[in-house]
Amino acid sequence: MKVLIIGGGGVIGQKLGAALGKKGHLRGREISQIALADIVDPKPVPAGCPVTTHAIDIAHRASVDQVVSADYDVIYLLAAIVSGQAEAEFETGMNINFFGTYNVLERVRTLGNKPVVVFSSSIAVYGGEVPDPIIDHTFLNPQTSYGMQKAVGELLINDYSRKGFLDGRAFRLPTISVRPGKANAAASSFMSSIIREPLNGVEAVCPVTEDFPHYYLSPRKCVENLIKGAEIEAQDLGMNRAMMMPGRMWTIRQVIDAMDVVAGPDPAKLIRWESDAVIQKIVNGWRYDMRPEKSLKLGLTADDSFEDNVRYYMQDELGKS
Amino acid sequence: MKVLIIGGGGVIGQKLGAALGKKGHLRGREISQIALADIVDPKPVPAGCPVTTHAIDIAHRASVDQVVSADYDVIYLLAAIVSGQAEAEFETGMNINFFGTYNVLERVRTLGNKPVVVFSSSIAVYGGEVPDPIIDHTFLNPQTSYGMQKAVGELLINDYSRKGFLDGRAFRLPTISVRPGKANAAASSFMSSIIREPLNGVEAVCPVTEDFPHYYLSPRKCVENLIKGAEIEAQDLGMNRAMMMPGRMWTIRQVIDAMDVVAGPDPAKLIRWESDAVIQKIVNGWRYDMRPEKSLKLGLTADDSFEDNVRYYMQDELGKS
Repeated sequence: MKVLIIGGGGVIGQKLGAALGKKGHLRGREISQIALADIVDPKPVPAGCPVTTHAIDIAHRASVDQVVSADYDVIYLLAAIVSGQAEAEFETGMNINFFGTYNVLERVRTLGNKPVVVFSSSIAVYGGEVPDPIIDHTFLNPQTSYGMQKAVGELLINDYSRKGFLDGRAFRLPTISVRPGKANAAASSFMSSIIREPLNGVEAVCPVTEDFPHYYLSPRKCVENLIKGAEIEAQDLGMNRAMMMPGRMWTIRQVIDAMDVVAGPDPAKLIRWESDAVIQKIVNGWRYDMRPEKSLKLGLTADDSFEDNVRYYMQDELGKS
Repeated sequence: MKVLIIGGGGVIGQKLGAALGKKGHLRGREISQIALADIVDPKPVPAGCPVTTHAIDIAHRASVDQVVSADYDVIYLLAAIVSGQAEAEFETGMNINFFGTYNVLERVRTLGNKPVVVFSSSIAVYGGEVPDPIIDHTFLNPQTSYGMQKAVGELLINDYSRKGFLDGRAFRLPTISVRPGKANAAASSFMSSIIREPLNGVEAVCPVTEDFPHYYLSPRKCVENLIKGAEIEAQDLGMNRAMMMPGRMWTIRQVIDAMDVVAGPDPAKLIRWESDAVIQKIVNGWRYDMRPEKSLKLGLTADDSFEDNVRYYMQDELGKS
């Protein structure tokens, strides 16, 4: 069992690689290789099996062909241009998120070995005048180019699976928080930084009001769900391979209160409230009232409380128990 | 006001061109040119304004660039590989329906003149385990590559419109019947030929059982709706530019009974019943219980009865009143 993680240099890709390296098996078989591929040759992860790293530019088919081979039994396709950048740079977003996804799936189709392909979609596929709550059969109506590109990826995953070219599954990730590392160009970046920076004694800016509700999942649970997602049997997926990944809805106030409970009242004092019309406009188009019935039934799970999200961050990133 | 019809050599393209030529105006302005473009240089249509014809291969951007210019105020994008062929020849379907749509929209984006673009989608975007009835906010879950490619076209039309690159609208066409001309590679081809061939004294094969229900629209109403579709004001479309085009649900039995009423009992005797597992499998995945609330509200209409469909065919194609 060989596993390839495209986007293996990213926060989730690195954690997923390390989790698979520790677990040692997938879909009932021993993992004999973990390959991490990203636009910049990724850092290797600790594992009990060989770990290889590869530079890949999924926007170019020739680069995809060099990295993606018939050796891989499971391929994670996590690489993407994030929402803020895909909105600001339309062509970049199309090249990576639209054509990049197509290039990887086409490569897999022509190889003919029919691997499991796990695609990370996003709750940014939802939006517009579609009524709440969001259920398994809710119309996808993205209000960002990123969301459109992810919705296209889902349609491709479904059709390539239906045609028997591969065994695909797509999960619409909630906003991942508390995300380690630096702020990025995602419009949702602040949803981690208002916790992460204060926990590190650094000031953070919150660009929305404290009653802003959103749908969250911790990196730890996300990785658990991505592993479970690869292990689901094809026949249990039915006629639609794309689904919400479970998360939980919290307001900014609840998120900050959770930090207070876990880490005391001081970190929250480092949050500066500074409204940002551009970010507010993007995130207001996102949905948060989600009922991920199908994925819960298939065994995927959410965090129990945002306090857990804060604790996981402190344990996994700051080494605190 | 100049109008370009891509797919202008097809049944609907030719009728649309002729209807616009007769009408003489669109969106409150006089039509000064009708351009018909198709993979083979189309036949001109009668019109009170100049009519030009062009060969175009939308799978190739260079060909698109030669035909699509900033002169056009309204562009109809009707060209497509039909369902049966797109299912049998995956790459052909992708080249025309997926990349062809992208190539046209990209050309329009780079020209920057923001025309109205009317895209013909299909009810083949629906399918799978999604519950009936199909409403405006029903999840798109195509079970054919053709349906997937049309759903992608809708997503592009929506995002290019949201970004202000063009003023798009997409209509999910019901099965068009009674379609004149020859049978084609569409899995739905028999839904016209079982009426058309008998009315012309020719034998026809019905590959499904008589209780098979489907959702139909006459070519005449389809063209009326495509013209109305171009005239809708952008602000009335809301945050989703794609919608069902109204049609009506009939069983094969009802369709044949309508022919009996209009043309007497003899034509139906020319129908041979011969089940076809491949066609039955494709069409069984299609949906028919549609509630096109949004398009009806915007003034689009369906036929009053299938007897009208038969009468329109006899009037428009056989010259009978």
